[in-house]
Amino acid sequence: MAFSFGLLHTDGDARRGEIKTAHGTIQTPVFMPVGTAASVKGLTTAQLAQLGPEIILNNTYHLMLRPGAETIEKLGGVHRFMNWDRAVLSDSGGFQVFSLSSIRKVREEGVEFRSHIDGSAHFLSPESSIEIQRQLGVDIAMAFDECPSHGLPKDEVEKSMEMTNRWAKRSLAVRGEHALFGIVQGGIFPDLRKRSVEEIGSMDFDGMAIGGLSVGEPKEAMLETMQLTAPLMPVDKPRYLMGVGTPADLLDGVAAGIDMFDCVMPTRNARNGTLFTSEGKVSIKNARFTTDDRPLDPNCSCPTCTSVSRAYLRHLFMNGEIAASVYNTIHNVSFYLDLMRAIRQAIASNSFKGFREDFLSRFASGKNE
Amino acid sequence: MAFSFGLLHTDGDARRGEIKTAHGTIQTPVFMPVGTAASVKGLTTAQLAQLGPEIILNNTYHLMLRPGAETIEKLGGVHRFMNWDRAVLSDSGGFQVFSLSSIRKVREEGVEFRSHIDGSAHFLSPESSIEIQRQLGVDIAMAFDECPSHGLPKDEVEKSMEMTNRWAKRSLAVRGEHALFGIVQGGIFPDLRKRSVEEIGSMDFDGMAIGGLSVGEPKEAMLETMQLTAPLMPVDKPRYLMGVGTPADLLDGVAAGIDMFDCVMPTRNARNGTLFTSEGKVSIKNARFTTDDRPLDPNCSCPTCTSVSRAYLRHLFMNGEIAASVYNTIHNVSFYLDLMRAIRQAIASNSFKGFREDFLSRFASGKNE
Repeated sequence: MAFSFGLLHTDGDARRGEIKTAHGTIQTPVFMPVGTAASVKGLTTAQLAQLGPEIILNNTYHLMLRPGAETIEKLGGVHRFMNWDRAVLSDSGGFQVFSLSSIRKVREEGVEFRSHIDGSAHFLSPESSIEIQRQLGVDIAMAFDECPSHGLPKDEVEKSMEMTNRWAKRSLAVRGEHALFGIVQGGIFPDLRKRSVEEIGSMDFDGMAIGGLSVGEPKEAMLETMQLTAPLMPVDKPRYLMGVGTPADLLDGVAAGIDMFDCVMPTRNARNGTLFTSEGKVSIKNARFTTDDRPLDPNCSCPTCTSVSRAYLRHLFMNGEIAASVYNTIHNVSFYLDLMRAIRQAIASNSFKGFREDFLSRFASGKNE
Repeated sequence: MAFSFGLLHTDGDARRGEIKTAHGTIQTPVFMPVGTAASVKGLTTAQLAQLGPEIILNNTYHLMLRPGAETIEKLGGVHRFMNWDRAVLSDSGGFQVFSLSSIRKVREEGVEFRSHIDGSAHFLSPESSIEIQRQLGVDIAMAFDECPSHGLPKDEVEKSMEMTNRWAKRSLAVRGEHALFGIVQGGIFPDLRKRSVEEIGSMDFDGMAIGGLSVGEPKEAMLETMQLTAPLMPVDKPRYLMGVGTPADLLDGVAAGIDMFDCVMPTRNARNGTLFTSEGKVSIKNARFTTDDRPLDPNCSCPTCTSVSRAYLRHLFMNGEIAASVYNTIHNVSFYLDLMRAIRQAIASNSFKGFREDFLSRFASGKNE
């Protein structure tokens, strides 16, 4: 299996590393743009590649429903399907089954659910999730987990966590040629998280993820759980905080020793006209941009900021033009990738703490809307 | 004024020419992609430029309503606004006022109408249309015309045509630094078209357009009117058939001596999943494409056909992905531009007649859906 992780440097708890895959090397800490249905929403694969991400995420749940994992296998896998030659990580489908689908029946064997698209009945188990991810042909697959929603009583979260751990063993038992990451659960309960990270950490995974955060819990609880869990994770494997988050969250995660992130925030916000800049978030529909000829973010060198003005971006958004989503997505994804590049440089030069403070004070200085 | 037209070669009635503008030279016959609100729907300006059009069309009606001609003038004109350095032609707003807006009051002075966006009241006259087009900063402006819908009695079409001719004189009287084209009207009545082309042709326009076709009349009547009108137009000025049409219409137009075309068909069809190929039109949502790994059109070298499969295009379309519109628009616009390139080559080598027959027989050979 063409997968390895090397730790290059540390700065406090922040880690600078390198993941090698059959589809290229990934510099960490890394942000993975989300390409739900084998498409980072708003971008062609060529536009995405121009922004330079070294890995993207695909959703098992969406692809198994449409066009189906067998179809993608027949077409040569997701890389060929979307003409993407860098690395791909797929989630296990667990989170989407519990957040998107309806009429779920969770048994020890797996989960029965109905498609949110057409109501058709489907079944996911550790074995079938791993098989689907093998059919997709991804570089990194995730173990199948149950992702309990926030607010459940502790004993239910505990039972769910224990099943996730049993499912992790079953996922490992059927793994393919891809790398396989385990997922730590346990809600916001410190002792459950500790037990989960110990049990998952004792298994032969290639990396480990913190799942079950950003599911409705208060921001403080998310941070505390992440900060408690990260240092307990194996030092010699990549640590992945799933589904998180804002630029500040990424900085907090890196500070706690996280190596990998994914989130729909940059792409979804782009489509809603909320754009990240070095001076904070802005809503591009604000009337003050009507005749503003400046680039969206003068400190950004993305294809959007180097070609069109705030006034044009506002005009496209107000007109509902498709190009609004495209230009905005190009910028927001660039912003996240640039932030990670700067973070990696800061760690390498032992200046991450100062970088983080500077970034947050600049980011909070703007007219946040 | 940086505008000139030169006729390079003729092949039967088909003309091979060259228009020079301050924003580059345009090889004719030419198809102008429609960038209604200063955006060719689905494409960033960089994506559009990659496809190589030498001129695009903007809609005066849409831009005067949003963001407003003064706003665009303040921002340095449409070229700078959308970061487009090739030529731009704007229509006069006449057609949209009569097809999109509500509560119109047509007087000799001009037209009162209400915006289709917010119902606000506006007024367009020959003078204000030309002023708006000057504010947009286009290379070629169109005289303000009344575009009667199909089916009106002849005397009404005649009165309308006479007013369009008076409006043409008023448009000329206030022209700016841009080139200005006159528009021939007269519905599908041969004697009215003849009168109109004589009167407009006697005025000092830089080019002449056939307006008022593709407005609901039978295809035969459109072709007959075009074929009757084109040869009466001045030989030494560009001839522009407005709002037309299908690939077959373009070939018919060129055969009759037309030099310029525009139409929303390639872009609108792209968004609806109807794609033009060398073997005819296809609907990309057809189930037979589900596992079809071939390029959409093996004879096409556009960024879509050289990067992704029919199966991927179908998948994106069925998922409602933004990228579906983008990939499809790239292809359809490329198809139209490639067709015009091939037409120009055929004229230059005196083989247009054979080319036209070959193209139409190939285009009709596919599974038209």
